[in-house]
Amino acid sequence: MKKLINKIDDVVREQLAGMAAAHPELKVALDPHYVVRADAPVKGKVAIVSGGGSGHEPMHGGFVGEGMLDGACPGEVFTSPTPDQMYECAKAVDSGAGVLFLVKNYTGDVMNFEAAAELCHSEGIKVQNILIDDDVAVKDSLYTAGRRGVGTTIVVEKIVGAAADEGYTLEQCADLARKVNQCGRSIGMALTSCTVPAAGKPTFELGETEIEMGIGIHGEPGTHRMDVAPVDELVDHMAKAILDDPAYTRIVRELDDATGEWVDKELVDEPFAKGDKVIAFVNSMGGTPVSELYACYRKLDEVCKDRGIGLVRNLVGPYITSLEMQGFSITLVKVDDEMLKFWDAPVNTPGLRWGK
Amino acid sequence: MKKLINKIDDVVREQLAGMAAAHPELKVALDPHYVVRADAPVKGKVAIVSGGGSGHEPMHGGFVGEGMLDGACPGEVFTSPTPDQMYECAKAVDSGAGVLFLVKNYTGDVMNFEAAAELCHSEGIKVQNILIDDDVAVKDSLYTAGRRGVGTTIVVEKIVGAAADEGYTLEQCADLARKVNQCGRSIGMALTSCTVPAAGKPTFELGETEIEMGIGIHGEPGTHRMDVAPVDELVDHMAKAILDDPAYTRIVRELDDATGEWVDKELVDEPFAKGDKVIAFVNSMGGTPVSELYACYRKLDEVCKDRGIGLVRNLVGPYITSLEMQGFSITLVKVDDEMLKFWDAPVNTPGLRWGK
Repeated sequence: MKKLINKIDDVVREQLAGMAAAHPELKVALDPHYVVRADAPVKGKVAIVSGGGSGHEPMHGGFVGEGMLDGACPGEVFTSPTPDQMYECAKAVDSGAGVLFLVKNYTGDVMNFEAAAELCHSEGIKVQNILIDDDVAVKDSLYTAGRRGVGTTIVVEKIVGAAADEGYTLEQCADLARKVNQCGRSIGMALTSCTVPAAGKPTFELGETEIEMGIGIHGEPGTHRMDVAPVDELVDHMAKAILDDPAYTRIVRELDDATGEWVDKELVDEPFAKGDKVIAFVNSMGGTPVSELYACYRKLDEVCKDRGIGLVRNLVGPYITSLEMQGFSITLVKVDDEMLKFWDAPVNTPGLRWGK
Repeated sequence: MKKLINKIDDVVREQLAGMAAAHPELKVALDPHYVVRADAPVKGKVAIVSGGGSGHEPMHGGFVGEGMLDGACPGEVFTSPTPDQMYECAKAVDSGAGVLFLVKNYTGDVMNFEAAAELCHSEGIKVQNILIDDDVAVKDSLYTAGRRGVGTTIVVEKIVGAAADEGYTLEQCADLARKVNQCGRSIGMALTSCTVPAAGKPTFELGETEIEMGIGIHGEPGTHRMDVAPVDELVDHMAKAILDDPAYTRIVRELDDATGEWVDKELVDEPFAKGDKVIAFVNSMGGTPVSELYACYRKLDEVCKDRGIGLVRNLVGPYITSLEMQGFSITLVKVDDEMLKFWDAPVNTPGLRWGK
């Protein structure tokens, strides 16, 4: 295993220490681990918090800052953070306006963020949990009941972060986050595996010309393995898996602030259709260079144009990664004017940054 | 070879086509290849142009836009662009205020940009060439007489791009570019090789636990190979190679606008010293995830603090890459108030973007 690390036990802590050194606008707590805006809590503002296993950087710690997240809780590599991390982080960012937890749909994350929400509720912090479940590759997966949470997470974090900045209440932020999640669909593929430091060997093995379609961000199995094909064929297959995906029914759990009980409700979304405006996100799994992502974008743009779907904004680069894995994912999020306005709003984080 | 490509001959063209699709604010010409701001030429402004082999993205095409480059000329992968590309690009961006060519020190690039400058001069375009030669690893190298041009290039492009925006003349831009180059020093290392599509096999071979110190961005040999060591040891070695580098004497060639002749002059720079303010740039060679770069940054910050050198700004990510090579480079650029002001100025390009 060749990695830029010291001792295996120190990997996450030292990466966070580097982030703290590079970004004085963030406060990085090391016991337990969490990253918050140095100016948190921001008076009167709903706090947006995310988290999950490390190894997907810049997600989530790299998205803490003005216009996006107030806090992030990094677990060990590919391991859920714990409820006490989430609770301490929530306490550090809550201004009294409440905390929105953005949670990718993996069993450990879901369970721990629910425990953290209950803890927050019992301590008088208003809280709501949003599940991101946008991966169309497989229905259930290793570590997941239902769809996995992947690329749409970044789009939710950006849009809801900007909405919170503009004074949206906790309920409004929660509604918007659910809407963005409902509008987003993703799929990924891998050219190579990755190596979790503590494991010391690749998570899975691929042959010299073999790739895996529908891979998860922890190397969970996808739909099939195949010989490497021209990028146009890969993108065509993946774009159609997203665009042809039918209406999806999901159960959403809301924490009732009055009773502290979880209430389930059913939400049905809509498939993509001609005339949709879409944010297109072409993501590197970590080891694929941006030049190859642009080859993917070229074909994606063509497929969408053929369907009458307009790619009105895009994001191309390594944003939700799987350590050094080579491969890419496509995320399409249908947007309306409200979502577009918040996407375009200024953002100032280590991982995503733009002005007016 | 597993890559996200179609036919080998189409690699660069299709990546540029993807860039054009994703970035309507750029104009991408495909015969010959160059990338310019869609609003070029910008009235009254000196045009900043760079270029070099492809495979280092986002450099250079990804740095075209407000506050940075007016144009970029991408060659084939790891191959110099041709003088006609550079000349056509210069014509497309020249407003009459002149064109500054920023050239990394590789024999082919230097020769072709000199030919392009002569062509521009003969056609009445004011032009000046700046050579970037900042790699302290080796004195001469495959493809290079003198030091190779690497990470400082990005810092020159950012700072001089902002200065041109503010109305600096061609001569002022050239002087500033030389100053930034003189203040910058870099060194890189590789954990793995990379594969040029047309070659179909890795540029060089490294053993399972072997790394190469002082590598060039085309996989040119460095100073030595060694067993992989803790990141702290690697960074300590590399930071000291930069910080202990003595005064460097370089020959600078200027094109005399009156005679069209090249005039050589000698410039001597200064080594780093206690009290210096520095921009620290920790760069991924393409396949190394940003999480590992932060582990590098942590140690770099420590080494510099011990020397009384202040890292007042930083850039951490994949900006000057070598396809999918795993590894990283460190660039330190000593800055004064003028340089810092231009570094902080807004920039809006696909690869580097921030507001006020």
